[in-house]
Amino acid sequence: MQLKELAEKLQCRLVGNGEIEVHRLAPLCEASEGDLTVVVNARDLPKLEASRASAVIVGEGSPPWSKPALLANDPHLVFVHALRLFSAPDHPMPGAHPSSIVQEDAQLAEDVAIGPLSVVEAGVTIGPRSIVGAQVYIGKGCRIGADCRFYPQVMIRDGVEIGDRVIIHSGAVIGSDGFGYLKDRQGARIKVPQIGRVILEDDVEIGANVTIDRATMGATRIKRGTKIDNLVQIAHNVVVGADTVIAAMSGISGSVEIGDRVTLAGQVGIADHVKIGDDVTVGAQAGVTKSLPPGGAFLGFPAVPHLEFKRSVAAINRIPQLLMAIKRIEARLASLEGTMRKRQEEAQTSQSASEGGPK
Amino acid sequence: MQLKELAEKLQCRLVGNGEIEVHRLAPLCEASEGDLTVVVNARDLPKLEASRASAVIVGEGSPPWSKPALLANDPHLVFVHALRLFSAPDHPMPGAHPSSIVQEDAQLAEDVAIGPLSVVEAGVTIGPRSIVGAQVYIGKGCRIGADCRFYPQVMIRDGVEIGDRVIIHSGAVIGSDGFGYLKDRQGARIKVPQIGRVILEDDVEIGANVTIDRATMGATRIKRGTKIDNLVQIAHNVVVGADTVIAAMSGISGSVEIGDRVTLAGQVGIADHVKIGDDVTVGAQAGVTKSLPPGGAFLGFPAVPHLEFKRSVAAINRIPQLLMAIKRIEARLASLEGTMRKRQEEAQTSQSASEGGPK
Amino acid sequence: MQLKELAEKLQCRLVGNGEIEVHRLAPLCEASEGDLTVVVNARDLPKLEASRASAVIVGEGSPPWSKPALLANDPHLVFVHALRLFSAPDHPMPGAHPSSIVQEDAQLAEDVAIGPLSVVEAGVTIGPRSIVGAQVYIGKGCRIGADCRFYPQVMIRDGVEIGDRVIIHSGAVIGSDGFGYLKDRQGARIKVPQIGRVILEDDVEIGANVTIDRATMGATRIKRGTKIDNLVQIAHNVVVGADTVIAAMSGISGSVEIGDRVTLAGQVGIADHVKIGDDVTVGAQAGVTKSLPPGGAFLGFPAVPHLEFKRSVAAINRIPQLLMAIKRIEARLASLEGTMRKRQEEAQTSQSASEGGPK
Repeated sequence: MQLKELAEKLQCRLVGNGEIEVHRLAPLCEASEGDLTVVVNARDLPKLEASRASAVIVGEGSPPWSKPALLANDPHLVFVHALRLFSAPDHPMPGAHPSSIVQEDAQLAEDVAIGPLSVVEAGVTIGPRSIVGAQVYIGKGCRIGADCRFYPQVMIRDGVEIGDRVIIHSGAVIGSDGFGYLKDRQGARIKVPQIGRVILEDDVEIGANVTIDRATMGATRIKRGTKIDNLVQIAHNVVVGADTVIAAMSGISGSVEIGDRVTLAGQVGIADHVKIGDDVTVGAQAGVTKSLPPGGAFLGFPAVPHLEFKRSVAAINRIPQLLMAIKRIEARLASLEGTMRKRQEEAQTSQSASEGGPK
Repeated sequence: MQLKELAEKLQCRLVGNGEIEVHRLAPLCEASEGDLTVVVNARDLPKLEASRASAVIVGEGSPPWSKPALLANDPHLVFVHALRLFSAPDHPMPGAHPSSIVQEDAQLAEDVAIGPLSVVEAGVTIGPRSIVGAQVYIGKGCRIGADCRFYPQVMIRDGVEIGDRVIIHSGAVIGSDGFGYLKDRQGARIKVPQIGRVILEDDVEIGANVTIDRATMGATRIKRGTKIDNLVQIAHNVVVGADTVIAAMSGISGSVEIGDRVTLAGQVGIADHVKIGDDVTVGAQAGVTKSLPPGGAFLGFPAVPHLEFKRSVAAINRIPQLLMAIKRIEARLASLEGTMRKRQEEAQTSQSASEGGPK
Repeated sequence: MQLKELAEKLQCRLVGNGEIEVHRLAPLCEASEGDLTVVVNARDLPKLEASRASAVIVGEGSPPWSKPALLANDPHLVFVHALRLFSAPDHPMPGAHPSSIVQEDAQLAEDVAIGPLSVVEAGVTIGPRSIVGAQVYIGKGCRIGADCRFYPQVMIRDGVEIGDRVIIHSGAVIGSDGFGYLKDRQGARIKVPQIGRVILEDDVEIGANVTIDRATMGATRIKRGTKIDNLVQIAHNVVVGADTVIAAMSGISGSVEIGDRVTLAGQVGIADHVKIGDDVTVGAQAGVTKSLPPGGAFLGFPAVPHLEFKRSVAAINRIPQLLMAIKRIEARLASLEGTMRKRQEEAQTSQSASEGGPK
C-alpha cells in the first residue's frame, strides 16, 4: 500500500513522500525497509533515525525527524487501526464445508461459513457473515448473532445465546454443566441438573481453553464488550458486567456478580456469591472472599485494599526490627531495674545506718 | 405434568389442587405461571405468596400458605429430584453416527450411541446405554462401563479404564503423559516413558478442560463418586479417594494421595508425594506442602490449620499497633531514665555538698 | 526379551542367568514374575529379595544380591532407557487417513502419518516421520519439523513454526490471539490485531490443554529442550529459554523473558514484561512482580528470595510472642514507674519534713 493511501484510510496528515510503498507494520526495534513503524513517545525519535523503517506514525507536534510520516493525535491508536487494515483476517468461502455435519433445520444467514468437520445441531441459528472454524461443535438450539468468529475446536453446548461480533478462541467450552451436587441421606452426592443456559452479549471475546458453565436455572451471563483471557473459569449463574476484563487463569465461583469496567488480573479467585462493584481492580493472584464496593483496588488473600496489602507486606518486613527493638528495650529496663535496686539497697543501708547511728 | 403425577413420582404428600399443570421448575425469585418452585426456608413463605408460581415444594410442618403444594422433609432434595425428572437429558439414537470412525473390533453394548465425527480405536469396549458425544476420541483398548456420558470433544487416550455412570465434560483430556524427565550426564532431559494408565471408578464426574495424566507405571486413580470441577490438573500416579470434591483450577502434583470425602476448594495446589487424610477440607488458593492428618481444615501457603491462618492474618494486622506500643514504651523508658539520671545527679550533688560541708 | 539382549542394548554388564525372559518393567513395590525392576538405592536391596521380580538393574558396587541383574553406574537412568525400549510408541500407518482433510499443496515428508478427522490447511509442511493424531487442526502455512508427535485434538493456528522432535499433548492450543486491546476515545476496547506467530524449537514438549498465544508482532518463542506441563498459559511475545521446565498451571504474562534452565513450579504467575535470569527457580504458587537475577530461588507473593520468604513466615509466627513480650515489658515499666513515683514522694516527704523541721 502507498503511504498516501494509508494516510487517507487512517485520516492522518501526511508529511514527506507519500509515494513510498509500505509492505508491513513493525515495532520500532524490529522495523526494516518497507516497514511502517510507530513512535509513541517523542524520546524514541533518535531510535527512529537509527532504524531502517521506511515510514512512521508520530504524534502531532513532535520534534523534527527525517522519514515520511503520518501525523496523529494518538499514534498508538492509529497504529492499531493500521494493523487492522493490514491484518484483515481471511474470510473463508461462505457455506458449510461438505465434511461438516449441519442439521437440516439449522438456519445459516448469508455469508456464514462453517469449517470442515464441524457439527451444527438442530435448531441452531447463525447470523450473517459469522465464521465457524474447523472441528467446532454447536449444540441444539443455540442462537448466534452476526459477524461472530469461532476458531477451530470451540465447543458450544445446547441452548447457548451469543450476540454479534463475538470471538471465541479454540478449546473454549461454553455451556458445560455447573458444579452442583446435593447429598442424600446416605451421604452420596446427587447431581443437581443444570438446566439453565449461557448468554454472551455483543462484542464479547473468549480466550482459548476457557470454560463457562451453564446456569443451574436461569443464565450465566457475560455482558457487552467484556474480554476474557485464556484458561479462565466462569461457574454457573455468574453475571459478568459490561466492558470488564478478566486476565488469564482467573476463576469465578458460582453466582458471583461482577460489575462493569472491572479488571481482574491473572490467577485471581472469587468466592461464590460475592458481589464485585463497578470499576474495581483486583490484582494478580488475589483471592476475594467478600463483596467489594465499587472503584477500589484489591490484593492478597483474603483480598484487602491494595494499600492495606502493601502495608501488611511492609509490616512483616519490620518484624525482625521489632524483635531487636524489644531486646534493646529489655536491656534498658534491666539496667534501670538494676540501678533502682541498687539505690533501694543504698537507701536502706543509709537509713539503717542513720537509724543505727544513735545506738 | 400434573401436580398429582409429580407427587406420586416424588413420593410426596399433595396439598391442594392436584390437577394443576406444571410446565417448568424455577427458583422462587424467577417463578412465573405454570412453574413449580421450592421454599427451602420457612421465612421465605411471604415471597412465595408474592410470586406467580403455580405450585410449591415446602417442608412438612411449615406455617400456612395458599398455593397447591408438595410436602417434603427435605424440600431442596425433592426439588432436585423434580429437576431430574424435568431435565432427563436427550438420549440420542443408539448406534454409531456414520461420520464417526469406529474400529471393527471395538465392542459397543446395546443402546450405545456414538456421536458424529468421533473416533473409537481398536479394542475399545463400551457398556450398555453409554453416550459418546460428537468429536470425541477414545484410544486403543479403553474399557468403558455402562450409562456413561461423554460430552463433545472429550479426549481419552489408550488404555484408560472407566466405570459405570461416569460423566466427562468437553475438553477434558484423560490419559495424557505424566510430566517426567531425567537428566543425562550432559544435562539434557530424557523423557521418562509414561506406560501406566488412568482409572476412573463408578459415578465419577470430570469437568470441562480437566487434565488427568496417566501413571508412569501403574495407575492414576479417581475413586468412586468423586466429582472434579473444570480446569483441574491431576498429575501422574495420583490417587484420589472416594466421594471427594475438587473445585475448579486445583492442581494435584505427582504421586499425591488424597483420602475419602475430602474437599479441595478452588485454585488449591498440592505438592508432590503429599498425603491428605480423609475428610480434610483445604480452603481456596491454599498450597499444601506437607501431608495433612484426617479431618482438619487448612488454609494459606504453606497451608496451616484454618484457625492458625486466621490468627496469622490477625497478627499481621496488629503489627502497626505493636510498633506504636514500642514507641510508647521507649518514651516511658526515656522518661524513667531521665528521672533516674536527674536523681543520681541530685544525689551526687547532695552527697558532695554534705561531704564538702565540713570544710 | 531375554535379559542378555537387554544387557546388550542398554550396554550394561550382565550378572547371572541371561536366558531369563523379561516381559515387563515395574517399580520394586509392584514387580511380579517376569518383571525387570530397579534398585536405585542400595538400602532397598532387602526389598528386592522379598519381591517376585525376575531380574533387576542395580548400581555397580552394590552389596550382594541373588537375582539376575544388569549393572549400571546410574541405575535409574538405565531403567528409563529400558522403559523407552519397552514402550516404543506405536507408529501408525504412514499417510493421511481418508477421513482427514489435507489441502493439496500441503507437503508431507516420507512416513508422515495424519490421523482420522484431522485438518491440514494450505501451505503446511511436515517433516519426516512426524505423527499427527486424530482430530488435530494445523493452520495455514505452519512449518513442522521431523519426528514430531501431536496427540489427538491438538490445535495449531496458522503460521506456527515447530522444530524437530516436538511433542504436543491433546487440547493444547498453539497460536491463539494474544490478549491485547486499546481503548478508543469513547472508552470502548479496540482489539489489537495479533499478527505475529509462535515458534517452538527442537525437543520442546507441550502438555495437555496448554495455551500459547501468538505475538502481537514478531514471535512468541519456546526455546530448545524446554518442557511445559499441562494447563500452562504463555501470553503473547513471551520468550522462554532453553532447557527450562514449567510445571502445571503456571501463567506467564505478555512480553516476559525467561532464561535458560529455569524451573517454575506449579501455579506460578509472572507479571508482564518481567525478565527472569538463567537458572532461577520459582516455587509453587509464587507471584513474580519484578525481574529476577540469575540463579536464585524465589517464593511468595510478591516473590522474594526463598530464605526471605521463610524468614517472613517464621516472623509472622513470632508475633503472638512479641505481643506477650510487650505486655511483660509494660508490666515491668509500670512497676518501675510506681517505685520511682513512690521514692519521689518519699523524697519530697522527707525533704518537706526536714524543711519543716526547724519550725
